[in-house]
Amino acid sequence: MAILRRIGAEGFRNLKGVDIELDPVSNLIYGPNGAGKSNLLEAIYYLCYLRSYRNAIEEELIGFDRDGFSLEGVGADKTAVVRLKDGKKKVILNSVERRRYSDYAGWIDCVVLTLSDIWIVRGSPTRRREWLDILISRIRPDYYRELIEYRSILKQRNQLLLKGRMDGGIEAWTDRLVAVGKRIYRLRHAIFPEIENIYQELSDDLRLESTITYQPSTEPESFRADLEASQPRESEIGQTTVGPHRDEIVIKKSGHNMKGYGSEGEQRLSGIILRIVEQELFKKKKKDPILLLDEPFIEIDNNYRARVEELLKRSHQLIIASTRDSNWGRRFKINGGRIEVAG
Amino acid sequence: MAILRRIGAEGFRNLKGVDIELDPVSNLIYGPNGAGKSNLLEAIYYLCYLRSYRNAIEEELIGFDRDGFSLEGVGADKTAVVRLKDGKKKVILNSVERRRYSDYAGWIDCVVLTLSDIWIVRGSPTRRREWLDILISRIRPDYYRELIEYRSILKQRNQLLLKGRMDGGIEAWTDRLVAVGKRIYRLRHAIFPEIENIYQELSDDLRLESTITYQPSTEPESFRADLEASQPRESEIGQTTVGPHRDEIVIKKSGHNMKGYGSEGEQRLSGIILRIVEQELFKKKKKDPILLLDEPFIEIDNNYRARVEELLKRSHQLIIASTRDSNWGRRFKINGGRIEVAG
Repeated sequence: MAILRRIGAEGFRNLKGVDIELDPVSNLIYGPNGAGKSNLLEAIYYLCYLRSYRNAIEEELIGFDRDGFSLEGVGADKTAVVRLKDGKKKVILNSVERRRYSDYAGWIDCVVLTLSDIWIVRGSPTRRREWLDILISRIRPDYYRELIEYRSILKQRNQLLLKGRMDGGIEAWTDRLVAVGKRIYRLRHAIFPEIENIYQELSDDLRLESTITYQPSTEPESFRADLEASQPRESEIGQTTVGPHRDEIVIKKSGHNMKGYGSEGEQRLSGIILRIVEQELFKKKKKDPILLLDEPFIEIDNNYRARVEELLKRSHQLIIASTRDSNWGRRFKINGGRIEVAG
Repeated sequence: MAILRRIGAEGFRNLKGVDIELDPVSNLIYGPNGAGKSNLLEAIYYLCYLRSYRNAIEEELIGFDRDGFSLEGVGADKTAVVRLKDGKKKVILNSVERRRYSDYAGWIDCVVLTLSDIWIVRGSPTRRREWLDILISRIRPDYYRELIEYRSILKQRNQLLLKGRMDGGIEAWTDRLVAVGKRIYRLRHAIFPEIENIYQELSDDLRLESTITYQPSTEPESFRADLEASQPRESEIGQTTVGPHRDEIVIKKSGHNMKGYGSEGEQRLSGIILRIVEQELFKKKKKDPILLLDEPFIEIDNNYRARVEELLKRSHQLIIASTRDSNWGRRFKINGGRIEVAG
């Protein structure tokens, strides 16, 4: 079972000489705005995936007047050190330097739940596809490689469409797009029913009356025919209009689209469910992620709050960041990037 | 002074037979997730501007199994009724039907502050330009017309660029773009210093050490020359790369970009300031808007909270929606779309 026993950070955003022992079950980091709470969660996330969950570029992760940062994480049986200095990154797992991401990623996993998750539900279809793609990538690394390839083929096919080169060049790109697209479809079709079931269970637990469904823009067997049928229109607008990049993930509440009809609170609850779905999927793959929570209970009324807390407690290790102190596991006080165990 | 004394709503989202007398100073609407709090704020906003602040389309504003909605607002000296039925909208102000938006808008103004405002600060430059454009449009309706025209010219110019028609047709569009663009620049340059000052004052009041600056992509006098210089590149990508649609509004905290470096709480405080800037600008134009607040204090720590409350109290009429009851002005309880005065 993956647990983070210790986290050390230096030069990472505003964090200053952080070195704390975490509780294996429940931790609370509290402090005022700008104290560094989210930065600590970000540091843990970075130790898991070598990237920011807030889509910050690496340069932005370095503290002011610093030329780099250093992070250290101690798990149950693995220790990771990541250093970024002068634009160079050094990644060490169990005292061995790792040059390939795949030799590092997965030593410990985490899921982050933040206020922004509401945008998976409320935002454009792109947001939901992105959520699905990251999720599948984490449990099936081959999916990520397929996606990268698909995007590259798509881009080149769109450029050809745009330039109106109908002289045969497009067909080779269509072939490649269909081949990679079918593999993406296979993985999405294999995993989505699981997502649907877990979402349904969680929604029932919360009594939210919400469902999630996958609405592909085409099917593997009809992908080529649909591409060919839409080619005249595609050439006009320079866009490939069917394929995995145009699929929809539809979230409903009592039969109506959550995006247009749900309240802010309901959309947020649905976003929380999506993150717990991730966690449960990880668990099924024996990966047991840490759950990082940035102000989890905001905008959730008391009817739902107790049930959300129950859901969150299913996690084996929780790290909660909040502006408010409360009686929740091991408590840490953070201010100006410095963390100490609260008395 | 514009005050909303009464609001009535029927068939609007989940609101059911709402008819309440508001306090002229301070009102709290509290109830669980999905009760209809934001829908009530939305109804008030709609009475002000005939549109949704959450960018919902009109069809989405109609309650389920309803064929339309009806809203009524009673101000100090004006009464407005808006009905939407079978896709037809009827707008009546002081018993006279209004066919033009300009004969209706401005009878009462409001500013809405929500959790999503963080995205003005954290999101893409488009978000901040949109905020600026809506703000200027509200105090200078001619600005809105210029914007609509600019966008239409821009679209056609980009299409020509894309098709690579360098045969002179593009020049006419460049001329028109420069003419309208200069008028947009004139208004932005006239109003931004005021915005900058008010933002600065509010940031000082909060001790947030934050600034806002306007960074145009070009200047009125160099607009044409810059367009001509970038035309080869523009033809390649089919995009007009300078002009009011590419200007930046930069928000900083202690000299660093708030977007990349601010904490969630700081970004949210900055978003709150942007909304109060709106309100103050309205006031200067003698328009005195109602302030609608959707969960205003979330994610704000206690250091800032008292100061934010002080800022909000400068408003002449406040309407707050929250999942939590508190002792703030006239209290209304909302559940399942029904509102009653709390005991």
